[in-house]
Amino acid sequence: MSGATRQELLTRLAQRNDRRIVLLVLDGVGDLRTADQPRTALEEARTPNLDDLAARSALGRLVPAGTGITPGSGPGHLALFGYEPTAPEVDIGRGVLEALGLGLDVPRDAVVARGNFATVDGEGRLLDRRAGRIPSAEGERICGLLARRIEVDGGVLGDGVEAEVHAGEAYRFVLLFRAAAGTPALDPDLLDTDPQQLGVPPLPLEAAAGPGDAGRAARATARRIAPVVEALRRELRAEGRANAFLLRGFSRLPALPGVGELYRLRAAALAGYPLYRGVAKACGMEVVDCGKAFGQVLDRLEERWRDFDYFFLHVKGTDMAGEDGDLAAKVAVIEEVDALLPRLLELGPDVLAITGDHSTPAPMKAHSWHPVPLLLSSDRCFVDDCARFTEAEAIRGAVGTIPSSELMGLLLANAGKLQKFGA
Amino acid sequence: MSGATRQELLTRLAQRNDRRIVLLVLDGVGDLRTADQPRTALEEARTPNLDDLAARSALGRLVPAGTGITPGSGPGHLALFGYEPTAPEVDIGRGVLEALGLGLDVPRDAVVARGNFATVDGEGRLLDRRAGRIPSAEGERICGLLARRIEVDGGVLGDGVEAEVHAGEAYRFVLLFRAAAGTPALDPDLLDTDPQQLGVPPLPLEAAAGPGDAGRAARATARRIAPVVEALRRELRAEGRANAFLLRGFSRLPALPGVGELYRLRAAALAGYPLYRGVAKACGMEVVDCGKAFGQVLDRLEERWRDFDYFFLHVKGTDMAGEDGDLAAKVAVIEEVDALLPRLLELGPDVLAITGDHSTPAPMKAHSWHPVPLLLSSDRCFVDDCARFTEAEAIRGAVGTIPSSELMGLLLANAGKLQKFGA
Repeated sequence: MSGATRQELLTRLAQRNDRRIVLLVLDGVGDLRTADQPRTALEEARTPNLDDLAARSALGRLVPAGTGITPGSGPGHLALFGYEPTAPEVDIGRGVLEALGLGLDVPRDAVVARGNFATVDGEGRLLDRRAGRIPSAEGERICGLLARRIEVDGGVLGDGVEAEVHAGEAYRFVLLFRAAAGTPALDPDLLDTDPQQLGVPPLPLEAAAGPGDAGRAARATARRIAPVVEALRRELRAEGRANAFLLRGFSRLPALPGVGELYRLRAAALAGYPLYRGVAKACGMEVVDCGKAFGQVLDRLEERWRDFDYFFLHVKGTDMAGEDGDLAAKVAVIEEVDALLPRLLELGPDVLAITGDHSTPAPMKAHSWHPVPLLLSSDRCFVDDCARFTEAEAIRGAVGTIPSSELMGLLLANAGKLQKFGA
Repeated sequence: MSGATRQELLTRLAQRNDRRIVLLVLDGVGDLRTADQPRTALEEARTPNLDDLAARSALGRLVPAGTGITPGSGPGHLALFGYEPTAPEVDIGRGVLEALGLGLDVPRDAVVARGNFATVDGEGRLLDRRAGRIPSAEGERICGLLARRIEVDGGVLGDGVEAEVHAGEAYRFVLLFRAAAGTPALDPDLLDTDPQQLGVPPLPLEAAAGPGDAGRAARATARRIAPVVEALRRELRAEGRANAFLLRGFSRLPALPGVGELYRLRAAALAGYPLYRGVAKACGMEVVDCGKAFGQVLDRLEERWRDFDYFFLHVKGTDMAGEDGDLAAKVAVIEEVDALLPRLLELGPDVLAITGDHSTPAPMKAHSWHPVPLLLSSDRCFVDDCARFTEAEAIRGAVGTIPSSELMGLLLANAGKLQKFGA
């Protein structure tokens, strides 16, 4: 059954009830056993509460985006929310993802690019694609220059293009373009202006599609946006390190059917970091404002427990520790979650799944393709022989190894939210 | 590989030989371990013969219709017979399934609905959608009234519509419509007349499709059948409780390619209950009349052993016990099968698969989505480390966890009935 057909079938079978589902995502929790790291973070951690829960649950493993495919945070979470992450219509481009990560409200019609400030020589040739990794304060100051340039023209530049600039971390920023009222919509099918090498100038802004009808809208957009980009570039000529910029990942927010529409859920997202709030919002979840600490997430969960029947909780620390290659830090985050787990269980979720959006093994200091352990707890799950929530135990769990995109259906089933298929 | 592609490949590779395959379906055999039920029926049962066989076999698990999807008996069996159960062209509608369950011979061109007798007040508004659950004898009497009304017109009513009525259990019955000779075929795309609520009248018979070409045939059918339905309704006006009826699940027998055509099998179905005989027949199997007890099934199997090379044997008791939430009864059925297993083995099937069409966990008293254990025995299966035929052992079996629809190809392979693919 293809991903699309499966989603249609779930939509047909979905029914509301009062049972509550909690999906707790420990970002990048999956890890590796290697010669140099004989135990994973989950194996190393002291987790009496998770152990106890695992002994009463079904374990299994999730494959985020297919065997061997390492997903970014976008696809990793989209899969957990029930979308087939490699389907083109589901793709959240890098520009949009960066904007969501900054907590921006991205309008459906906006074309968004992720920017790097860069250094060029007197001839305009790239010397440094990251402008010497200028500090964030410096990035903000320069973004201020660009914003003032935009304001000069009342926010509308060139051929009816509204632009916004937002500073990110260090040398990173976001450019957001919209068609001014009464002008044709903008098309995101544009090429990066980053040549990915030094000694050459940034590329001119061009449409991605070749000649012919297919690329007509994108070419028109490129013609309208290119002068805006040039005008902004000129503002930076007098700067030291950040005297140029590169744009990448032109994209628009995908028009995803929301999880309410797809699965009749009233879904809430409790995540401390804007990127995850943004992805959840793009999937039709209501974003509940909360802090970054798991305790703060639980505070809000307790307050809003009666208002929803699906809760996505996000813990970022596991991924950050994995990216840093810091096994001890990853263990500490897991132990912190374990210590607070009783508060979550006290609420009495009918279905609780604990997993990750992907693995971030400490030895790799990066996301990876390895299957992610899953713990599934409900009064309808098969209590298997797994004693702890670890990668190795999960191999022999009752859920088996399934695509992450199939988890949503499994959660719905465990919550009694799916009718029988056929008589 | 989509289900259709796989089936085409199998058809291309299928070859006849004399080796015999037996598929023994213990309906709903899969069960759960929960806090309240620490052992499944298979774990609880004393099964020396199954244990012995399991030690010489490969185990695995079958997923009937996709992760989290709970199948009805139709899709559950279609999958075991090699069809992709969620494909629309494979769907056996509720009307047809009910007719098959009554043992009716459903002609390919018939449109069949499942009926409920119901109670309406003086204004025609529904008081009881099941007519107070009248006893079967009462249902039969009322069906007799309707049958006599049909006979008055020589079996052809209204605009060239032949009708048949067949009593089911209690308040249930089946209405079967066919186009009279020389009139256009009937289309099953009709809406239920059951409004699914009380206080309103039954709905008029209408086509499901909206206006336009797509629904033309269905609208024509609705116009022809509606007067027949009205004429039959009028017959019940003087009745007490069953003074109305509701129709649901209009459908036609799907035009499935048979397993003979698909896999070059001479296939026999030995099932004590009509529903399973009907589904098997719709898949091109020859139905061998037999009793409901497993011993009676084996009697007929022994008699007809030389006549076929694929035998579908069906045991209903496991599902019935599961639906009743009666673990002890489920255990008893499994032990009965175990005791008779030597008779089956004596015949020397070249390939024997024992599994279920779905799980019916006693704690749930209903079908479920949980993977079903599979035992596969042949001289070409991998003898794995599983010691018993249980859900938990099957997790680590050599077959792995696969869609039920892939079992047929595995059986053919073990029977040497599939040529090599490619050179």
